[in-house]
Amino acid sequence: MKGAVLYGPRDVRFEERDAPKIIKPTDAVIRMSATCVCGSDLWPYRGINPIDQPTPMGHEYCGIVEEVGSAVTSIRRGQFVIGSFFASDNTCPICQAGYQSSCQHRELVGGAQAPLLRVPLADGTLVAIPDSPSDDLIPSLLALSDVMGTGWFAADAANVKPGMTVAVVGDGAVGLLGVLSARQMGAERIIAMSRHESRQKLAREFGATDIVTERGDDGVAHIKELTNGIGADAVLECVGTQESMTQAIRSTRPGGSVGFVGVPHGVEINGEELFYAHVHLHGGPAPVRRFLPELIDLVLNGTINPGKVFDLTLPLDEVAKGYRAMDERRAIKTLLRP
Amino acid sequence: MKGAVLYGPRDVRFEERDAPKIIKPTDAVIRMSATCVCGSDLWPYRGINPIDQPTPMGHEYCGIVEEVGSAVTSIRRGQFVIGSFFASDNTCPICQAGYQSSCQHRELVGGAQAPLLRVPLADGTLVAIPDSPSDDLIPSLLALSDVMGTGWFAADAANVKPGMTVAVVGDGAVGLLGVLSARQMGAERIIAMSRHESRQKLAREFGATDIVTERGDDGVAHIKELTNGIGADAVLECVGTQESMTQAIRSTRPGGSVGFVGVPHGVEINGEELFYAHVHLHGGPAPVRRFLPELIDLVLNGTINPGKVFDLTLPLDEVAKGYRAMDERRAIKTLLRP
Repeated sequence: MKGAVLYGPRDVRFEERDAPKIIKPTDAVIRMSATCVCGSDLWPYRGINPIDQPTPMGHEYCGIVEEVGSAVTSIRRGQFVIGSFFASDNTCPICQAGYQSSCQHRELVGGAQAPLLRVPLADGTLVAIPDSPSDDLIPSLLALSDVMGTGWFAADAANVKPGMTVAVVGDGAVGLLGVLSARQMGAERIIAMSRHESRQKLAREFGATDIVTERGDDGVAHIKELTNGIGADAVLECVGTQESMTQAIRSTRPGGSVGFVGVPHGVEINGEELFYAHVHLHGGPAPVRRFLPELIDLVLNGTINPGKVFDLTLPLDEVAKGYRAMDERRAIKTLLRP
Repeated sequence: MKGAVLYGPRDVRFEERDAPKIIKPTDAVIRMSATCVCGSDLWPYRGINPIDQPTPMGHEYCGIVEEVGSAVTSIRRGQFVIGSFFASDNTCPICQAGYQSSCQHRELVGGAQAPLLRVPLADGTLVAIPDSPSDDLIPSLLALSDVMGTGWFAADAANVKPGMTVAVVGDGAVGLLGVLSARQMGAERIIAMSRHESRQKLAREFGATDIVTERGDDGVAHIKELTNGIGADAVLECVGTQESMTQAIRSTRPGGSVGFVGVPHGVEINGEELFYAHVHLHGGPAPVRRFLPELIDLVLNGTINPGKVFDLTLPLDEVAKGYRAMDERRAIKTLLRP
């Protein structure tokens, strides 16, 4: 089969790879219905996270089970399934506490930008959908594999509750779906921070009530202005830079919460500032598995449509074009069809 | 009147000062029943927080109202009252959210190591006790002014719930009362980190079930060993150094919480480590006012006896001796009687 392999900065190739096989009896192999490019794929693509060797790319997936290992009991060949980028057993104490992305036996899933994918710990990782979904639902179901679950975790980690004022730092796909999540959790006012017209438009469609275009101290000042000088009850940090983290902490009212899901790159948080800011801080790799059953229901019953973040759809063999469009911010997120 | 004034490193003098007066109509002046030396007083005492000029010391207090300003409505001359080190109006949106120590109109209370003290925003800050308490309750009531409220906030910020395993970093008075708070909130297992026999003894008396004497990586390893390799559900950071903060974060299970109340000195938190640690982080100056009514009840009905942390009682004019004993760790906490 052919799949996406990163060779170095801005060098993604679609090339022959060994087809994945069952290695452990707890594995499954699935045939991809769709996959996509993640904002976090851009870190190695841009050379910010250097790679040592040619690396199969992609970790977002949904599709039909092709084969299962001998120890797999709850997942069957032919089922339509969704899973997370971290495989998890879903039984260890950490999974039971809802932190499957820190599972004691977790394994990274990789190489999803291909027609076939091996998923470890299939029973714990994969959630099957009763009937095969109609084709128009595929983008929204695929989104649950990472980007929607991550936006949802940002809002969950920021303790978003009905009636709250929420600010979202970052207008990438995760930030936009953070807006949708906050709305779904009952936020009354949602301030999206964005400078890009097409992203502002989608933010409003997802439930944003206000747009702030400024960044840094000016962005903080604008948020304060919109919140009687106090700051937002909850702030979703969906970027992962020093600037975005600082902005998030300073935009939050004392006693409020920052949920951070942007993978931190060179971020240092000053203890004294955090102390006097009086904010709650929580984040990390989203425990997508915790949210999958609820989010699948919300997609299947038409309540949410997170697939709208895919504003570019390409055949899988044009994957390099998909990376380029996201790198140049011409696309919010690229969906790939094998 | 005479009160404690800090002149420089390890130079506390008991000397003549102007007696405090009502300055604003919202002030009260109280006659101290008891006051004490705080762990945080040691930062300037040791020269780690340098001072610019001779500084009246002390911010923990309880006593009898001597005089109130013309705008004070709920506090009367003759009442026995307790307040926090931050005066607060208790009506602004931040106070209403329970963060009175970040009140929009907060003022630091200072100069409490003296027979008389001016307390701003008396209506919002002071909580009166129906009858004058018996003398043996004074130490425990005084403790509520800061040290007990701060230990309580550490446990509250760390989301301590019944049945949890809790670790406490720091065996000063705040850490010891963090142990008591965790027990009161229903923690099943409480691991106190301490190397000092007398403090270990008090920790056990307050509810500690385990003692860990190691620090740093060894301390973390021991906590992991006691918690099936996972870490504690909640960790109370009651010191404020880089080592103690790092130890607290690394001792917490994914999804667990760190409550930090040690005033951070030179602490930097690495964003990436915090991300993958998956812990909740919350702290700051304790909103003591939020907890006062509940904690006063617990003291008056004999449920808790936080005054046990005072293992040295001196007449106020020997205040310098009280600082010295705490600086040299011969005393956990010094109570001063005017």
